[in-house]
Amino acid sequence: MKLFNRVAIIGVGEIGGSIGKDLKARGLAKEIIGIGRRRSSLIKARTAGAVDKDFLVDRIGNGVKDADLIILATPVGRMAELGKKAALSAKEGAIMTDVGSTKGMIVRSLEKILPEKVRFVGSHPMAGSEKGGPLSARLDLFEGRDCFITRTKNTDEEALEIVKKFWKRLGANTIEVTLAEHDRIVAKISQMVHLVASCLIIANKDVLRYAASGFRDTTRIALSDPVLWRDICLTNNKNIARSLDELIVILRKFRNAILKEKAAHIERMLGKARELRRTLG
Amino acid sequence: MKLFNRVAIIGVGEIGGSIGKDLKARGLAKEIIGIGRRRSSLIKARTAGAVDKDFLVDRIGNGVKDADLIILATPVGRMAELGKKAALSAKEGAIMTDVGSTKGMIVRSLEKILPEKVRFVGSHPMAGSEKGGPLSARLDLFEGRDCFITRTKNTDEEALEIVKKFWKRLGANTIEVTLAEHDRIVAKISQMVHLVASCLIIANKDVLRYAASGFRDTTRIALSDPVLWRDICLTNNKNIARSLDELIVILRKFRNAILKEKAAHIERMLGKARELRRTLG
Repeated sequence: MKLFNRVAIIGVGEIGGSIGKDLKARGLAKEIIGIGRRRSSLIKARTAGAVDKDFLVDRIGNGVKDADLIILATPVGRMAELGKKAALSAKEGAIMTDVGSTKGMIVRSLEKILPEKVRFVGSHPMAGSEKGGPLSARLDLFEGRDCFITRTKNTDEEALEIVKKFWKRLGANTIEVTLAEHDRIVAKISQMVHLVASCLIIANKDVLRYAASGFRDTTRIALSDPVLWRDICLTNNKNIARSLDELIVILRKFRNAILKEKAAHIERMLGKARELRRTLG
Repeated sequence: MKLFNRVAIIGVGEIGGSIGKDLKARGLAKEIIGIGRRRSSLIKARTAGAVDKDFLVDRIGNGVKDADLIILATPVGRMAELGKKAALSAKEGAIMTDVGSTKGMIVRSLEKILPEKVRFVGSHPMAGSEKGGPLSARLDLFEGRDCFITRTKNTDEEALEIVKKFWKRLGANTIEVTLAEHDRIVAKISQMVHLVASCLIIANKDVLRYAASGFRDTTRIALSDPVLWRDICLTNNKNIARSLDELIVILRKFRNAILKEKAAHIERMLGKARELRRTLG
């Protein structure tokens, strides 16, 4: 069953492209429009069957015209500006969502600048690889993944339900959260972890030649785009700093137990961590 | 070409079992003896074709009798004691090596307690998974992997060359190091990384339910055996503590740059980390 006549996806990288492929494969939209900065990415997205039509970003108005759903799938640093531009040509009652990894700053600024006729609901699907780009787009990327949906005092109830339904139809498990909850959770479980991986690489730069598969696995996420992640850091900086502080406290405790050869303490911490990790499969 | 008539492997887990399988598949030994604490592990190792004969550890003397090469493949906490016991029944000129993840403490204590007739050379193959156990043993586990070989003032040159040849025939890339070099390198590139993964899990225990594939990859190594890793921590504690201190300095710098929204600094650090990580493939 079609959910939408027209869906416009702004940004056709891994996430935007995968949304397009899924919408098409599942028959959820009559027409999918891709909007991007680079002609080459648009061609890749169209060739991959992720979009039906495409527009360069300077023609964003033509792209979002008549769209029932507009999806911001660009790096977080560009969402406010592009959301605002898109809204100018959006139809009355259009729903807009995003896929940004941080929510507070983005959602608050979009709620402030968007016109009344556009109903915004923030999303954050927990999916995607360190590779990024339209060639990483794939079917079923969101299948079984969590997708945060944010509710604020300004959220339109109908739009919220439609955005939820949209992600559910893509196979995601939707989780409704406040902006503050979202940004605290992902600072811990995702952003801090990424930054720690980067720091581990820097700390080991003189011995990287000896890295084995464990180190490669642990630091794989640090292959992600630095500009994209810089903006994620900047839009959730207080939560990330607090998460790093909490981690440093735990690292110090562990470090002291090791230096003082507290065998039982070390074993207990390692055992606790393994037990918790096992719950993730 | 056979390198050895008889090889005795003490400990038939993932590493010991894989050595046995490789020796057999490559025709490097006439006879492979497995020695273990549990009858069930010995049966698994024999069934998997990793050893020809097996002995419980209380009959270690019968197991190592006439062996040209004795390999200590137990957790590091048990190596000194078992090495000493094995040496009692070892033949004149027998070569003994180990596969321990730390070297200074183990090699120094074995050099002190082993009788003259046994020539000890420390090894550390950088291979193995977080699973461990005889069922994880597999052919070609060491193919293309680094294997540290330690040289001390007491090392017998001929024994060193034979141990090197042994690992090379198993496909490993041998690297000769001092005890101090080894323990500094692995504290950084392996042990600290493991402990950080454990700390990330503990720091995130309230939000683990939101973990995605990046977090699972980053923390997979924390699934390893806590007792085994406790002993690794205890036998290399000063180096590990120093590595954690160095990491914490880097984490703090990063944390401050993020809190103060130093965009260029953040991007540079992330970019540098990605560039270094890319060299690992």
